[in-house]
Amino acid sequence: MRLKNKPWALPLIEANPQYVVTEPAKLRGKWDERFTTKQPLLIEIGMGKGRFITEMARRDPKHNYVGIEVQTTATGIALKKQLELKLPNLQLVSGDGNDLTEMFAPAEVAGIFLNFSDPWPKKRHAKRRLTYQTFLKQYQQVMQKDGTLEFKTDNRGLFEYSLTSMNNYGMVFDQVWLDLHDSPEAVDNVMTEYEEKFSQKGQPIFKLAAHFTS
Amino acid sequence: MRLKNKPWALPLIEANPQYVVTEPAKLRGKWDERFTTKQPLLIEIGMGKGRFITEMARRDPKHNYVGIEVQTTATGIALKKQLELKLPNLQLVSGDGNDLTEMFAPAEVAGIFLNFSDPWPKKRHAKRRLTYQTFLKQYQQVMQKDGTLEFKTDNRGLFEYSLTSMNNYGMVFDQVWLDLHDSPEAVDNVMTEYEEKFSQKGQPIFKLAAHFTS
Repeated sequence: MRLKNKPWALPLIEANPQYVVTEPAKLRGKWDERFTTKQPLLIEIGMGKGRFITEMARRDPKHNYVGIEVQTTATGIALKKQLELKLPNLQLVSGDGNDLTEMFAPAEVAGIFLNFSDPWPKKRHAKRRLTYQTFLKQYQQVMQKDGTLEFKTDNRGLFEYSLTSMNNYGMVFDQVWLDLHDSPEAVDNVMTEYEEKFSQKGQPIFKLAAHFTS
Repeated sequence: MRLKNKPWALPLIEANPQYVVTEPAKLRGKWDERFTTKQPLLIEIGMGKGRFITEMARRDPKHNYVGIEVQTTATGIALKKQLELKLPNLQLVSGDGNDLTEMFAPAEVAGIFLNFSDPWPKKRHAKRRLTYQTFLKQYQQVMQKDGTLEFKTDNRGLFEYSLTSMNNYGMVFDQVWLDLHDSPEAVDNVMTEYEEKFSQKGQPIFKLAAHFTS
């Protein structure tokens, strides 16, 4: 979702380097240094306004969290939350998540969240979908062997595509939800801003949890 | 779906051995003999009243079709259709499809259809689902290398389970549909009796096409 550009966002980001990383490649292999506790790292690619990653970090102090977002305004809004909460296990990245391997060393990441990624519905744009094989390869490169990819979307076409793409890549499915909010796991589900708004329309949220075999 | 037992069904089946096989194990490895043309064999496990397999056989004379059904009354209803149409590429089996390997030799089958199988929703009954690993193993044993399994259901829980089960078994997904009737492929989709009735309620039909790698 595109947000209107807010002029306050960039100065706020620049004024808070303790919470927002703007040159993530420099931390490759040493993300631990950004956190008070050395513990497994979970990342969200495209955190939007950061509701999901902030709430995950708050609920789960036993993991470190990194939220990546290319839109400055969205990152700014996420930063405002963090300036209130000051979670020691949350760092934000203002930048493009398109090449994770520049940002993380092999096996530096314990798990990846993809929430409501751009569906790129046109066939000729398939390569831009975050579940296209080139992206899956990056996830595999930066993740630990037992690391899990958790993918949520409301977009039927993207989910159909992603089930096939992840299967064809050789990923092992842990669980599939075709209506997450009508499942036993709904109680523990942390919703994104978009998810809450969307699900009130009564349409299903799809989710896939999967891992790589090597 | 259980049907009320009709007393005419069994005598009708017994009077028409040219269309209904009651001892399928005797044909293992020689199903070709039951058809006028030697051509690839597609089977449906649980054909119900036979609408799907009959229509497939009618539309597609370049394959031989076998519909398997354990309920005598359902098979009797399918037989009535065949007695009208006299399709040379359709044979019915009145019997249990629970052990395909007794019925078909390795690689004797080119493709398998599973339509609206019993969902067996209780976890302790998972082994009875026709996409449980023991059944997948049978399909793999009787199918040719490039053979395709096509699976349709309206049952969300069964579809969620089957995506995971088939993926975990190592099957390769060709395509996934989360609302088959609202897809470009809907025009060519042959509906079962149940599917037509169910889809009028507006709920989605799920479909998975997949193959084994060996």
